[in-house]
Amino acid sequence: MNWTLGELAERLSGTLEGPADLPIARPVTAQTPDADGIAFAEADKYLAIAEASGVGAVLIWREARTAKVPAIRVQSPRMAWYSLLQACDRPIPSGSGVHPTAIVAPGAQVDPSATVGPYSVIEAGARVEAGARVFPWCYVGENCVVGPDATLFPGTVLYRDVTLGARCIVHAGAVLGADGFGFVWDGSRRLKIPQVGTVRVEDDVEIGANSCVDRATAGDTWLGEGVKIDNLVQIGHNNRIGAHSVLAGLTGLAGSCTIGERVLMGGQVAVRDGATLGNDILLAGRTGIMQDLTEPGEYFGTPAHPVREAMRSLVHIHRLHEMNRKLKELEREIERLKERLP
Amino acid sequence: MNWTLGELAERLSGTLEGPADLPIARPVTAQTPDADGIAFAEADKYLAIAEASGVGAVLIWREARTAKVPAIRVQSPRMAWYSLLQACDRPIPSGSGVHPTAIVAPGAQVDPSATVGPYSVIEAGARVEAGARVFPWCYVGENCVVGPDATLFPGTVLYRDVTLGARCIVHAGAVLGADGFGFVWDGSRRLKIPQVGTVRVEDDVEIGANSCVDRATAGDTWLGEGVKIDNLVQIGHNNRIGAHSVLAGLTGLAGSCTIGERVLMGGQVAVRDGATLGNDILLAGRTGIMQDLTEPGEYFGTPAHPVREAMRSLVHIHRLHEMNRKLKELEREIERLKERLP
Amino acid sequence: MNWTLGELAERLSGTLEGPADLPIARPVTAQTPDADGIAFAEADKYLAIAEASGVGAVLIWREARTAKVPAIRVQSPRMAWYSLLQACDRPIPSGSGVHPTAIVAPGAQVDPSATVGPYSVIEAGARVEAGARVFPWCYVGENCVVGPDATLFPGTVLYRDVTLGARCIVHAGAVLGADGFGFVWDGSRRLKIPQVGTVRVEDDVEIGANSCVDRATAGDTWLGEGVKIDNLVQIGHNNRIGAHSVLAGLTGLAGSCTIGERVLMGGQVAVRDGATLGNDILLAGRTGIMQDLTEPGEYFGTPAHPVREAMRSLVHIHRLHEMNRKLKELEREIERLKERLP
Repeated sequence: MNWTLGELAERLSGTLEGPADLPIARPVTAQTPDADGIAFAEADKYLAIAEASGVGAVLIWREARTAKVPAIRVQSPRMAWYSLLQACDRPIPSGSGVHPTAIVAPGAQVDPSATVGPYSVIEAGARVEAGARVFPWCYVGENCVVGPDATLFPGTVLYRDVTLGARCIVHAGAVLGADGFGFVWDGSRRLKIPQVGTVRVEDDVEIGANSCVDRATAGDTWLGEGVKIDNLVQIGHNNRIGAHSVLAGLTGLAGSCTIGERVLMGGQVAVRDGATLGNDILLAGRTGIMQDLTEPGEYFGTPAHPVREAMRSLVHIHRLHEMNRKLKELEREIERLKERLP
Repeated sequence: MNWTLGELAERLSGTLEGPADLPIARPVTAQTPDADGIAFAEADKYLAIAEASGVGAVLIWREARTAKVPAIRVQSPRMAWYSLLQACDRPIPSGSGVHPTAIVAPGAQVDPSATVGPYSVIEAGARVEAGARVFPWCYVGENCVVGPDATLFPGTVLYRDVTLGARCIVHAGAVLGADGFGFVWDGSRRLKIPQVGTVRVEDDVEIGANSCVDRATAGDTWLGEGVKIDNLVQIGHNNRIGAHSVLAGLTGLAGSCTIGERVLMGGQVAVRDGATLGNDILLAGRTGIMQDLTEPGEYFGTPAHPVREAMRSLVHIHRLHEMNRKLKELEREIERLKERLP
Repeated sequence: MNWTLGELAERLSGTLEGPADLPIARPVTAQTPDADGIAFAEADKYLAIAEASGVGAVLIWREARTAKVPAIRVQSPRMAWYSLLQACDRPIPSGSGVHPTAIVAPGAQVDPSATVGPYSVIEAGARVEAGARVFPWCYVGENCVVGPDATLFPGTVLYRDVTLGARCIVHAGAVLGADGFGFVWDGSRRLKIPQVGTVRVEDDVEIGANSCVDRATAGDTWLGEGVKIDNLVQIGHNNRIGAHSVLAGLTGLAGSCTIGERVLMGGQVAVRDGATLGNDILLAGRTGIMQDLTEPGEYFGTPAHPVREAMRSLVHIHRLHEMNRKLKELEREIERLKERLP
């Protein structure tokens, strides 16, 4: 970009505290030694970091002390910074129309305003809706729907009967609709249970790179509106995830789980088969769900306990050696007491 | 599908308890409010769920009470349901023959009954055997073998010297034969240890989407007959997995492990370098193997203990705060006793 | 290969102890029943394994006892074996030049000595440098740089602004530069925080199959020289990993972490948002970092403790049932003492 600090102050409705003609090229983090960068600080700690790092300028809050570097004073430094990020954002280029090397089966529909990148394959009965962008090497299987303005990054695979709502974003290498993992042991080998269900994804869902969402055994695996899934997440068959829930990287949901709305899961969380989580439950990273949770709140541990209790247990675990020593001492004390008794 | 309840009762050798002409379109789960769906219930709990959900009909067991919804009484509701799943199953379409855009190197062999999808690459010395299906963008590297009736879903990569037995299924994005992870530190940097071994996969193995099976440093990484691997599983170099073992999602085997037959691993299990597990060992999800296990049975925890002991420890951990409180009380009691002693 | 034991003894500057004309075809592990294979043993345990396995010959150390199988006595059996691995290593074939089906955008530069495989896409502003090898279906996005002699295996995706140094290796299915995972809740839905930063990867970095390295919100996600990353690893936005650090499979770094040099992480490690790890820290598999660590050394557990303490706690956890029993006994003892008091 090509801003001056003065232009930015005006653009962000902030107060300029520094040279109006200072050139600013990009938003950066407070630690970045970039004389053309502008960072944000929403607490003294970050302001000090920005002052020490060599960053060109800093967005500060209304009541902040005077900064030792050029600054713009704004209502919300974080939101001002976001608006700069937004200004810098540019879509990854995706050409226009259907690339001549893309293979669109007879009976598939691609809206004229959608783009399909080189070497992609759209199978029979599939629909790519208005404004959707399909990058190279995407597989849109039989009867799949890519909703309006949705994006499939390179190498996305939708097996079949997968429907994606409007504005969904699926990152590179994600696989939706692969066979759910189910077998029956017949006494000598495992028979594959046919997985005849589907995957239904509502509007505004984002799915991270190399994540997997299996199709249901029967019925559907369902991701509610606005669900956000990070990279390398495993969603087994027949799971249902409520609207606006967020799952961080390397998390795994076994099968047939029911997850409420606005549930947040940190990284590497595991949820066992058939578990139910209510709305507004927050699971710290690495939590392992062995039982249902209905009460909103923050949980941690395996099994999950309210975070305060779980943290207390961690402290006690680390002191077990000490506890054990004390216990032995008490045994000895009691022996001594017995001897002293008449 | 286009069934009536009467036709289904006959097909499944069951007893009709409801209107013979009720149209049934698909197997569904008991929770599904689908008037055209048929679910199964093998216990009162699930029968009650089916009665309440609005599902069209239910498969019930011989001794079950009369259902409040149309039903078919059968020997095994689960097996009857599976047979309906089977009837609904249809293969993902894979064209026929070698697609004109597929690149088959001179010296590679593709059986005339095999299919190779658009944009796939078959390298020199590779063999795609009778009835095998290779979907788009698969890489079948030098000297690889895709066994008879095996399936490679879109984007599968076999580096080289990977052999897959008959009827193997490899899901989208899985990578077989990438370099094992090995380096030596020479005092200033890590030197890459060449990985010159192979991956050998026996018949009827299934490998999940985006899973990785590394090739051996020397010799082979080996998956026995009927092994089933879920999505996002990491199998390091030189591991050996016995026949009919099952590994659920996000599980990782370090390197040079020896896993017995019919071993079951839940999700997110970790097995350390060089560990040995005997036959018929069951590891609950999230178990971490730090030592060899030889005794068949169910294990849990890190390190793994028999599941009963591991669960007991979890209960005690959650009560540590209480234990600690009690311990302090006892200390005080003893002090008081001492004072009261003559 | 086509060696004799005598030729190998000479090649490895070792002492022949067995028939000079014994044919040797390949390095194998000590357990391998391969009469044409040569293994290495650097301790009595492995020598015994090699003697029992049916391996053709074994590399032994200077002071080893006489082997019961043909042997070569060398300074370092491990290094001698590595040099054989090196002799057996052959690169995966990658053709030459730009394949006619590769799509190189106007304004992208591909060095004449580089190779670009079939169906790959090189976007505008990207640069593929001398000797680099790009396998099929790689996406080298806008303004990306693939450094000299770097390798992108099939299906690698670099979103945009990703720079890879010299000799980097990126394995199949890895995704670099996907959007960092960041949202703000506006009261009714999550707004996507634009991710306008980059990924910078220094020389000699290796990234495993299906691993993900997200681009920064602003600034860069940075991997130092010689960093080695295994398969299925998740590196969130704005992480910085110091030179020569190693991350094993299924490990996840949340975001904005600062990892020192020569840090080693076992499999399934998790590092929380914003954590800082000093140089020369070793994290055993499954460790969960909840706080900064500065002191070099080996750590384990969640939260991480010095490995000795962590292991001690594990032992105590397993004895909690016993401790609890003892505690109850002491309570009873004290009651009895009280009764006996005058």
